[in-house]
Amino acid sequence: MARPGTLYTVGLGPGDPELMTLKAARIIATAPVVAFFAKRGRAGLARTLAEGRIGAHAEELRLDYPFTTEVAVDDPRYAAEIGAFYEAAAARIAERLDAGRDVALLCEGDPYFYGSSLAMLDRLARHYPSEVVPGVTGMSGCWTRAGVPMTHGDDVLAVLPGTLDEDRLLAGFARADALVIMKIGRHLPKVIAALRRAGLAERAIYVERGTMAGERIMPLLAMEGQSAPYFSLVLVPGRRRAR
Amino acid sequence: MARPGTLYTVGLGPGDPELMTLKAARIIATAPVVAFFAKRGRAGLARTLAEGRIGAHAEELRLDYPFTTEVAVDDPRYAAEIGAFYEAAAARIAERLDAGRDVALLCEGDPYFYGSSLAMLDRLARHYPSEVVPGVTGMSGCWTRAGVPMTHGDDVLAVLPGTLDEDRLLAGFARADALVIMKIGRHLPKVIAALRRAGLAERAIYVERGTMAGERIMPLLAMEGQSAPYFSLVLVPGRRRAR
Repeated sequence: MARPGTLYTVGLGPGDPELMTLKAARIIATAPVVAFFAKRGRAGLARTLAEGRIGAHAEELRLDYPFTTEVAVDDPRYAAEIGAFYEAAAARIAERLDAGRDVALLCEGDPYFYGSSLAMLDRLARHYPSEVVPGVTGMSGCWTRAGVPMTHGDDVLAVLPGTLDEDRLLAGFARADALVIMKIGRHLPKVIAALRRAGLAERAIYVERGTMAGERIMPLLAMEGQSAPYFSLVLVPGRRRAR
Repeated sequence: MARPGTLYTVGLGPGDPELMTLKAARIIATAPVVAFFAKRGRAGLARTLAEGRIGAHAEELRLDYPFTTEVAVDDPRYAAEIGAFYEAAAARIAERLDAGRDVALLCEGDPYFYGSSLAMLDRLARHYPSEVVPGVTGMSGCWTRAGVPMTHGDDVLAVLPGTLDEDRLLAGFARADALVIMKIGRHLPKVIAALRRAGLAERAIYVERGTMAGERIMPLLAMEGQSAPYFSLVLVPGRRRAR
């Protein structure tokens, strides 16, 4: 058996392809296999960000999610189907690693920060050489585009997924000076309600597709009654003090 | 008067120069003026990260901090001296912008995330064209090197500066699944004490100079009784669930 290949889990940054790191670009350009997740029938954001950077002779390994529409993570179908899907995807990557070929697994944002690629690392990192390349997070891309310095001096930042229930969101706001609420999507009305109860709704900023085509940035309250995509987040900047 | 230059505040990432973004590298290579903060007598981390990437004909504008040793931010000397220093530094940058020359201001990490360059943005962004380039945060670099996936699914992350007092730290831990405690330095014993009270000390990881030469990564409790530099942080990874 050949010496196994290395799994490179490569963070691609927040969406603007130029916000990928030099290291990510180097690994994508030289990897013999470039793997990525995508929804069926879609180009896939990760693959789109790598456009023009993959080596001419590289194999592209497309891993199609089993769902064509969003299935809630608390739906029983989700756990069953996603587990089987991840097992099969890991097996396809493992085949290449077993043959001694390095695999660059593309990952939006920063892999260790809510990364979808963690399911592959869980299954493969114990058995193969593995390296993770950090990326600019989606939230950094969004607060930069919104032009809001987020944290200063001794500010506390809390990052919360919009999937939490309203009371849990509110509890999470309590001790923080700056907030990021991720994964807004269908949770928008609840997030607005929680921020209102905390007296923070007026200061909150909504960012959709930050750093990407179709970017929208506005006061959160301008989104009331509208619907938000999954790739959106809400920012409450920290306190400014005289300096 | 010439059309004013643009101030580019450029995030350089966590310390490994290859973790700079493609956009940061492009701006540094083409800017007619490259400005950076440094302590007197030191090369300056930001300048070190840009080594070999600054254009041959660029002017380097070095901005020497008025302190040669760490002065606590609650020391009355700090507020007085740092304010005057920032005013003078902003004036030196403004001179170049007034002459129609773009200035790339180098900044470790991500500028809007506890960035030292915020003091320049406060003073200059209203008066000149300004663009901020996000970077990989120091914390992303550290958790990647430590090999710990930080957040999953609906985990809540809290980022706290070690400068907070012990009770405020403890309160900030309460609602979070994953923790990052920044700016450890002389606050190490207090941070260990707060994590002990929260029952989290055994799970905490200490990272010093993450992604850089001299990097050290170890269980936090192995640091007990030792001293930590400013460029160190403590990680408590989020919960892993079966997937």
